[in-house]
Amino acid sequence: MKPHGPIPPGFAADADGMLLIGDQRADELADAAGDTPLFVYDSKMLTARVAAWRAAMPHDVQLHYAMKANPYGPLLGHMAMMVDGLDVASGGELRAARTSGMATGHISFAGPGKRDREIEAAIKAGATLNLESAGEAQRALAIGARLGIVPQLAVRVNPDFDLKGSGMKMGGGAKPFGVDSGEVPALVRRLLDAGADWQGFHIFAGSQALDAAAIAETQAQTVALAGRLAHEIGTAPPLVNLGGGLGVPYFPGDSAVDVAAVGRALGETLAARDPALADSRFAMELGRWLVAEAGVYLTRIVDRKTSHGETFLVTDGGLHHQLAASGNFGTVIRRNYPIAVANRFGADPVETVSVVGCLCTPLDRLGDQVALPRADVGDLVAIFQAGAYGATASPSAFLGQGPAQEMLV
Amino acid sequence: MKPHGPIPPGFAADADGMLLIGDQRADELADAAGDTPLFVYDSKMLTARVAAWRAAMPHDVQLHYAMKANPYGPLLGHMAMMVDGLDVASGGELRAARTSGMATGHISFAGPGKRDREIEAAIKAGATLNLESAGEAQRALAIGARLGIVPQLAVRVNPDFDLKGSGMKMGGGAKPFGVDSGEVPALVRRLLDAGADWQGFHIFAGSQALDAAAIAETQAQTVALAGRLAHEIGTAPPLVNLGGGLGVPYFPGDSAVDVAAVGRALGETLAARDPALADSRFAMELGRWLVAEAGVYLTRIVDRKTSHGETFLVTDGGLHHQLAASGNFGTVIRRNYPIAVANRFGADPVETVSVVGCLCTPLDRLGDQVALPRADVGDLVAIFQAGAYGATASPSAFLGQGPAQEMLV
Repeated sequence: MKPHGPIPPGFAADADGMLLIGDQRADELADAAGDTPLFVYDSKMLTARVAAWRAAMPHDVQLHYAMKANPYGPLLGHMAMMVDGLDVASGGELRAARTSGMATGHISFAGPGKRDREIEAAIKAGATLNLESAGEAQRALAIGARLGIVPQLAVRVNPDFDLKGSGMKMGGGAKPFGVDSGEVPALVRRLLDAGADWQGFHIFAGSQALDAAAIAETQAQTVALAGRLAHEIGTAPPLVNLGGGLGVPYFPGDSAVDVAAVGRALGETLAARDPALADSRFAMELGRWLVAEAGVYLTRIVDRKTSHGETFLVTDGGLHHQLAASGNFGTVIRRNYPIAVANRFGADPVETVSVVGCLCTPLDRLGDQVALPRADVGDLVAIFQAGAYGATASPSAFLGQGPAQEMLV
Repeated sequence: MKPHGPIPPGFAADADGMLLIGDQRADELADAAGDTPLFVYDSKMLTARVAAWRAAMPHDVQLHYAMKANPYGPLLGHMAMMVDGLDVASGGELRAARTSGMATGHISFAGPGKRDREIEAAIKAGATLNLESAGEAQRALAIGARLGIVPQLAVRVNPDFDLKGSGMKMGGGAKPFGVDSGEVPALVRRLLDAGADWQGFHIFAGSQALDAAAIAETQAQTVALAGRLAHEIGTAPPLVNLGGGLGVPYFPGDSAVDVAAVGRALGETLAARDPALADSRFAMELGRWLVAEAGVYLTRIVDRKTSHGETFLVTDGGLHHQLAASGNFGTVIRRNYPIAVANRFGADPVETVSVVGCLCTPLDRLGDQVALPRADVGDLVAIFQAGAYGATASPSAFLGQGPAQEMLV
């Protein structure tokens, strides 16, 4: 038997033992969707998550949603109502963000491979470009000049530090992201000289960290770096985007990040900040932490079989919707995501089984030798922490399967 | 500097140093597609590959194409003209196969999570179901009875051996695929007693092997297993699908599998086979080996930048089209696929660079510290062995990017 990740708090069953998502029964949600597998996103959990963040953080820190985590239209619209800005990572995301209800002045675009047409679309829309290189800065200035529009430009800084314990390091050493911090002052001065509307810094040192102290330390380093850069430039950044970094517990032994501790430390950091940043605004940009926990992936068991004494539950879902949960995206060693039998939610485990997807590849495993209540053909399996980097971060066309249903409840 | 995989033979440049694919210049192909990135598949190389297989193999062995490797419509139609059967892995692939020109009597459907509606569609179409379990067999018989159609059923066998050195082991021990070999005779007798049209065995021990001797040994074991099963059943299988297993060289040090040696050994194996299999037909089912080499992924450089002394070429493509090449699908340690600067093809390398995609994640790396000729913004990078498990095996919706162009030339 191998352990699975912790089931997120806040999920419960009705008297029949059926998992409830947004107060609705999992089986009825599947019926309403018309097919399995499906992603269900709980709007009340999203709202609560934003509220929890605001309660924990200094009141003047802005919250941006990195929509790459989950761009599903209804969810994006819900988030846009609650957050202070959207971060997009492509021209496609920019188009979606512009229909979300968020004012384009609060949309920023980061990403190392922006094409000219994407830069042009952002400048025309009045979104802020987080510049990733001197070359991109030149292209943005030239396109702004050609259009006769003053571009809103921020500089993404590649910091010399990374976020300790983060699942993905975005700073510290040679990176494709941003401009090495030593070259930032000269670049910002060029932007100012060219008459651009300089928006400030975007400094993203890592993501998916669970250690509040490490996040706090990185934020302190980030604010200090912004202060040093402001001195060197001679002008204060209007906005310092501190990046994100808050992770969620996917795996056995993981526990939730202490956001209250992060917020307290950030308050102290900002209170003691360099006077050069006195008038700067600060933002955090979060994706996964805001939306992962509100999402559940429901897939139906289509076969139960035994091979060489091991029991397999074969589902109609799989890695084509849950690439990361299958252990094939960003992880070296496969570990089990939080998983449950949705129609026996909370029941004691009685057997060890492997839950596999319907794809004809040994990579397609959603739960490896997990202890579960008895489950049979027709039952529903739930994979948790499915609200981020699920539907769009998986190869949905693989083996002709196609995308899963999605619904916001 | 880290090495990259071997450039497949058969690719050359014109006098300008421009890579040719199907005798057409890479830059002109990109122009014709209207956008980058794009997958280009060379129909002549596909044709030559099938011919090479037929020249190497005993003349009475059939060739099936496993369309999961590449289901692009024009390519599928081209393959359907040349091979003896198509293997599909879902109802979606079945629909595509039925429009490919292949007679449905030569379509077989394998996959561990077939839904009732998929089984029904296959039976109605007259395709063969490769049964993965006793439970699936019961469902297929019941659906056939309900429809009043005698179902064409083969049994996928989980062999007790695997393919040595294969990238993916599909046999040997507990597996979600097929029926443990010891339980196959009783299941086949039940199918025969129920009046099903029993089509034989599907025995797939592994894929992506480069060692001809290992493949030959596995094929000998497979034929021996089919013979033992035929004795135990008392009836000869009409067809024995020997699976595939032939790999392609992706990585430094890989070399092409010696198909002539595989063919010679298979000829000897079949000549010496159990008399119980005297009237059985044999097939190999290949995906990757048939189509990988004929495909090239072309992506344009949109930025060239330096960070802490390292040079990055940032492209408009990435892991959203080339998940396996980025090292995030089925590999533990990332190694470089074959890669070149398409417009300086064959030129001597002059610098060490990393080629990254446009996604805002450190996972998006197409070439890590590879030695390449000088390349600048606007140049085209080619990733080879891109004809299999590329476009559909990658998360094309990730970060709002969308699918790549595809073309058959």
